Amino acid sequence: MTEVRPYTSVGTVEVTEVGPRDGIQADPTFVPTARKIDWINRLIDAGVRRIEATSFVSPRAVPQLADAAEVMKGVKRSKDTVLAALVPNARGAIRAAESGVDQIVVFVSASESHNLKNLNSTIDDSLKGFEEVARIAGDAGIPVHGAIATSFGCPFEGNVPVENVVRIAKAYQDMGFVGMSFGDTTGMATPPLVRERVQAVRAAAPKLSQVLHFHNTRGIGLANVMAGLAEGVDRYEASFGGTGGCPFVPKATGNICTEDLLYLLDEMGIETGIDIRKMIDVACDAEAVLGRQLPGQLMKAGLRLDLHPMDSVRTATG
Amino acid sequence: MTEVRPYTSVGTVEVTEVGPRDGIQADPTFVPTARKIDWINRLIDAGVRRIEATSFVSPRAVPQLADAAEVMKGVKRSKDTVLAALVPNARGAIRAAESGVDQIVVFVSASESHNLKNLNSTIDDSLKGFEEVARIAGDAGIPVHGAIATSFGCPFEGNVPVENVVRIAKAYQDMGFVGMSFGDTTGMATPPLVRERVQAVRAAAPKLSQVLHFHNTRGIGLANVMAGLAEGVDRYEASFGGTGGCPFVPKATGNICTEDLLYLLDEMGIETGIDIRKMIDVACDAEAVLGRQLPGQLMKAGLRLDLHPMDSVRTATG
Repeated sequence: MTEVRPYTSVGTVEVTEVGPRDGIQADPTFVPTARKIDWINRLIDAGVRRIEATSFVSPRAVPQLADAAEVMKGVKRSKDTVLAALVPNARGAIRAAESGVDQIVVFVSASESHNLKNLNSTIDDSLKGFEEVARIAGDAGIPVHGAIATSFGCPFEGNVPVENVVRIAKAYQDMGFVGMSFGDTTGMATPPLVRERVQAVRAAAPKLSQVLHFHNTRGIGLANVMAGLAEGVDRYEASFGGTGGCPFVPKATGNICTEDLLYLLDEMGIETGIDIRKMIDVACDAEAVLGRQLPGQLMKAGLRLDLHPMDSVRTATG
Repeated sequence: MTEVRPYTSVGTVEVTEVGPRDGIQADPTFVPTARKIDWINRLIDAGVRRIEATSFVSPRAVPQLADAAEVMKGVKRSKDTVLAALVPNARGAIRAAESGVDQIVVFVSASESHNLKNLNSTIDDSLKGFEEVARIAGDAGIPVHGAIATSFGCPFEGNVPVENVVRIAKAYQDMGFVGMSFGDTTGMATPPLVRERVQAVRAAAPKLSQVLHFHNTRGIGLANVMAGLAEGVDRYEASFGGTGGCPFVPKATGNICTEDLLYLLDEMGIETGIDIRKMIDVACDAEAVLGRQLPGQLMKAGLRLDLHPMDSVRTATG
């Protein structure tokens, strides 16, 4: 090849697996606690170094994750892997701290109407609530990471001003958070928006480590990763098998697929330290447990050098 | 936004619609001739300027396209749209010329074993046969375009040397072809391979206009388009709804989806002259006719500013 790594200067990427939380939280099939624990153990074994393991939210709001404490208790922890958990408020933070999570993740929308609908709160009130979460986390010695939902657009309002995203990121930095995720909640990110927002937040909140969390709702999730890589972003969130969905469009896909992302990175010569075949195994298991075909492609087609015998099939002409 | 068109210097892209040929050729559902004609008419009306309309192959090999001459006869032609047709040999070229196609497309694999399996011929014998096709086309005043199957890898052999692709491209240029397509037959293209092969062919056969034809078999089709755009390639082939498939993996997807590609280009500020909503309509119609869910995402989720009322659905927390 003429060059090993074109299109980016990034040489190593941290891929966060969000399947156990974002991937399954809205799935109608309850995943047994033992299976969740098994998945997380296998993710750790595959080399994933950050996992969104669960969420300490109201069991009524998200019955799928009502077993958050049990999951945390059952996992075979590794000092090499950060187990993060989402919390909506101080009560969730207390439960998360008691369960021994490595990182607490809070979230607010960059769109007022989405935040109202999702959390029944204004953006300012949400941010104010995070101060108490930060205090609880600080007392427990647990770092806090902040997600920004609808970072690239809102399903109710449409375009979201970059200033909204920057303002929340600055607040996160001021509260001493270690990092932030640009949440592409309903798949409205585009390459120009990625560039704009990554650069604006980098300028305004340079101490925050940036993570890109794309959805493939409109098919361009990995094109947005290419845009993120071009900007030098080296942290991405994805979900095994492409689990997850879009609450507004029943048939649409949600999170970008971890294995497909890993394959892209690997083929570009970018290190992740994650074993793709082990990840495919977890995705296939998730497909069996959830009982429906998942959108991941690599889990169906295999790696590019998984060859076929010449007598395997007829081919189509042309 | 900080910049309208980051990541590429390309300002205008020609998208070729290959759905009526590559998209449906192996589909078990026969598409009635009148419906094929209707689709092509609607593609022309949507602003598509090059369409792979059909294929003049043996009706036994590809029963779906046995009506090639009738389709060509029935379409409401436009001088703004090139109707291209695939031909495997001189006999096909004669039929294509009689049917009044605007462009003849020949094809050979860059992998010997794939060419043997697909065309029962060596690469050299295939190229030799194209000389007669070129003569027939020349006599009829029809330009010839050459596709190179397995340009980025072979399902039987694995990696395909770039020299194989370059050799065929040079032969195409020597025969006076107007352009060539890099066929990603089983979805083995990657961004570094795109860069390598586009640059090598540009150096060796500078007179040939280059077209990239990606498959989304491993989920990275549009990431490869980003790579192609970064190299300045301004011609891509895609299929409405992402129709097509992979003969080796029943559940895997085939061609990249036209609407999803158009959406990406449009959001990047790149002109195509094609009406995305009209293309979505054709894709939805194809889904109904073929009777199975197609892999296209935009046809399910809509454009990013197609908003939702706030009381439309519950949202998921986080």
